[in-house]
Amino acid sequence: MFVSDSLGVNESGNLTIGGLDTVSLAEKYGTPLYVMDEDEIRGNLRRFKASMDKYYKGHGLVAYASKAFNCLAMCKIAAEEGVGLDIVSGGELHTALRAGFPAEKMFFHGNNKTSVELAMAVENGVGRIVVDNVSELMVLNAIAKAAGKKANILFRIKPGIDAHTHDFVRTGQIDSKFGLALETGEALEAVRQAASLDGVALKGLHCHIGSQIFDIDPFVHAAEVMISFIAQIKQETGIEIEQLNLGGGFGIKYLGSDDPAPYEEYMRRVSGAVEARSKELGVKEPYIIIEPGRSIVGPAGITLYRVGAVKEIPGVRTYVSVDGGMTDNPRYALYHSEYEAMIANKAGRERSAVVTVAGKCCESGDLLGEGMHIQPCEAGDILAVLATGAYNYSMSSNYNRVPRPAVVMVKGGEAREVVKRETFDDLLRNDVL
Amino acid sequence: MFVSDSLGVNESGNLTIGGLDTVSLAEKYGTPLYVMDEDEIRGNLRRFKASMDKYYKGHGLVAYASKAFNCLAMCKIAAEEGVGLDIVSGGELHTALRAGFPAEKMFFHGNNKTSVELAMAVENGVGRIVVDNVSELMVLNAIAKAAGKKANILFRIKPGIDAHTHDFVRTGQIDSKFGLALETGEALEAVRQAASLDGVALKGLHCHIGSQIFDIDPFVHAAEVMISFIAQIKQETGIEIEQLNLGGGFGIKYLGSDDPAPYEEYMRRVSGAVEARSKELGVKEPYIIIEPGRSIVGPAGITLYRVGAVKEIPGVRTYVSVDGGMTDNPRYALYHSEYEAMIANKAGRERSAVVTVAGKCCESGDLLGEGMHIQPCEAGDILAVLATGAYNYSMSSNYNRVPRPAVVMVKGGEAREVVKRETFDDLLRNDVL
Repeated sequence: MFVSDSLGVNESGNLTIGGLDTVSLAEKYGTPLYVMDEDEIRGNLRRFKASMDKYYKGHGLVAYASKAFNCLAMCKIAAEEGVGLDIVSGGELHTALRAGFPAEKMFFHGNNKTSVELAMAVENGVGRIVVDNVSELMVLNAIAKAAGKKANILFRIKPGIDAHTHDFVRTGQIDSKFGLALETGEALEAVRQAASLDGVALKGLHCHIGSQIFDIDPFVHAAEVMISFIAQIKQETGIEIEQLNLGGGFGIKYLGSDDPAPYEEYMRRVSGAVEARSKELGVKEPYIIIEPGRSIVGPAGITLYRVGAVKEIPGVRTYVSVDGGMTDNPRYALYHSEYEAMIANKAGRERSAVVTVAGKCCESGDLLGEGMHIQPCEAGDILAVLATGAYNYSMSSNYNRVPRPAVVMVKGGEAREVVKRETFDDLLRNDVL
Repeated sequence: MFVSDSLGVNESGNLTIGGLDTVSLAEKYGTPLYVMDEDEIRGNLRRFKASMDKYYKGHGLVAYASKAFNCLAMCKIAAEEGVGLDIVSGGELHTALRAGFPAEKMFFHGNNKTSVELAMAVENGVGRIVVDNVSELMVLNAIAKAAGKKANILFRIKPGIDAHTHDFVRTGQIDSKFGLALETGEALEAVRQAASLDGVALKGLHCHIGSQIFDIDPFVHAAEVMISFIAQIKQETGIEIEQLNLGGGFGIKYLGSDDPAPYEEYMRRVSGAVEARSKELGVKEPYIIIEPGRSIVGPAGITLYRVGAVKEIPGVRTYVSVDGGMTDNPRYALYHSEYEAMIANKAGRERSAVVTVAGKCCESGDLLGEGMHIQPCEAGDILAVLATGAYNYSMSSNYNRVPRPAVVMVKGGEAREVVKRETFDDLLRNDVL
């Protein structure tokens, strides 16, 4: 029934997360409420690190892709666990710096960083800037030179892999807004250009083939393509590429029927491919970076809602309306992403009802799911949607001027608020009358 | 070329809005930037009011559907123009009250208002609460009685009209999370129940058949269905329904090829249908309310972006990346909604390039449009996306921790900021470390 080990059912028949009663959490902190299991988050980071140690002799870095869930508390957790951090904007950089995250372990991504963002990155000593294209290369070079610095860069490469995932989250193929193409020679040309510039130091390459991928083969294939490119660079330019950032995209279990590959298996096979291909082509095994985001925080989070209207339309369907919706989780509206859900205060019972869970926005598309199996419910019940730790809080909005929920972290049997609930006055903070 | 009268091209070849140079606005206020023409907004409100006067003897009210764009300044404009206000949440109510909007002219909608929201509405004397379902009716009745008040209500009715618009924005049919069905007798039963309660006073009925509808026929049909229901209520219960709220949904011109019906024509035909059917069925002509949102603010707004990377992928497409995207306008990602765009600093030239406009988020689906015709452009140019006044600011998010843009209003040749740009520190305001 559960998609995460962090969940259980207690003697009251209530859903628990990290051992705490979710119904009590909903009462204490209000609804809607994001709840995340910090022990689970730390455990996931450690599993990735351990598999890097085991299968690649620790010659690499796990960097948490913070766009999945970024706030001060999360950046601090990542810092304490000794991982790197993937950031994609000035806002993520600012947050990480405020949390005390070391800039040298950050990787700054993005298809269109502004010059303000590049200057922030240079000034603060961001460890690696992942340069997307040649015009960015030239802007960054100028900024770094003007600051009397040399920026360490990776190039984002499109390895030409189609990872068979959703169109919206597929990024490895040539028709992408991200990166430099291999096929056209564009990537090699960028490497040559970088070598001629004083403001940048080319440290490595980066690729990312997509998101929520269940199959390991495309990752292996991408790693092989990248090592081949490293060999080509060495052969044609003499430049030795030291670092290879293989991105993220590891699928997680949203539904009971989902069967993602174990992270260890990913690390074992991809490390093996990197070693074998490097040996075969006579290049040094690169320092590798992997960037899990969803797989660190997704399974660790749930969202708690209070059920309001339950509307049974005979012969059509039953709508269960909750006090949140697309404002706190736009993923069903955006991608028709499916989730498991249950009635937290009836978690021990059978999930015998099939319902459409609707949000409270004045919009028909404001649904959290259709055909969801939950316990029969009534107004006042607490609905828990599972595996919402990634891309829920981070994508939330104030549509309909709905304040964003609080985020509560659970750790060692204790709960604490890491993001406070927005107030109505928060919504007006930047208004000028 | 233009989808709004508010736009033009000045002697520098730059796009203007309300007579002001958009390139200067972008320089002064930064990008991305929402710019709205207040004169256009007020003009649209007045056009609706005038057509209500002309075709229905002024026996009704135009209520601005504020979810399209709600902030203090917009609520103040609506108050000054003497229209009503459609609100859908505690946050919208709070904003309107802070702007000094009179509560008695508000209509509180929503499929799942919380009891906190209902209590706020009762306490502040919201003019009409549009009750969605019977369980809400009972909660509201109890709240009003406890407060020693009587809440004026309308019932939301599903008239059973399919308005042939996008699934996400179609709400009149029986399979909807909103309202009470006519076919099943549910609506009539609710009317009877309301009549027996002390805490509510049934003032009328409401329907809303969908959004961005170009054809007037479904509106006429819905009005006829509603008058028939009013006659049925009178016949079967003796209750005379005084008010009929016909909702909104009037389509606007997003593309040069769009051809929405003129608002006047809507008012002429719908008023005619209400009068004719009322006469035919022997009921008093109701006071009518209409709720335009998108059609008031949509055409009045544009969004200005700065162009960053321009990536031509031979044989595939050209990506033009801008410094905003799905964070300030998620409508392409959500609905594949199309917009016209142009290079503001080259507005006088031919729009001879066909491009994909990409946002800066680390997400492949972060596009503002595909196959868009714009002037050939380069990094540093200002891109204007047109008709973004509705459901852009209101749906914006901080995904990727991107701060939300400022909103500038232009009036009588002067510009002023009505919503300040978010700062990086704003993003951390509710974080607890």
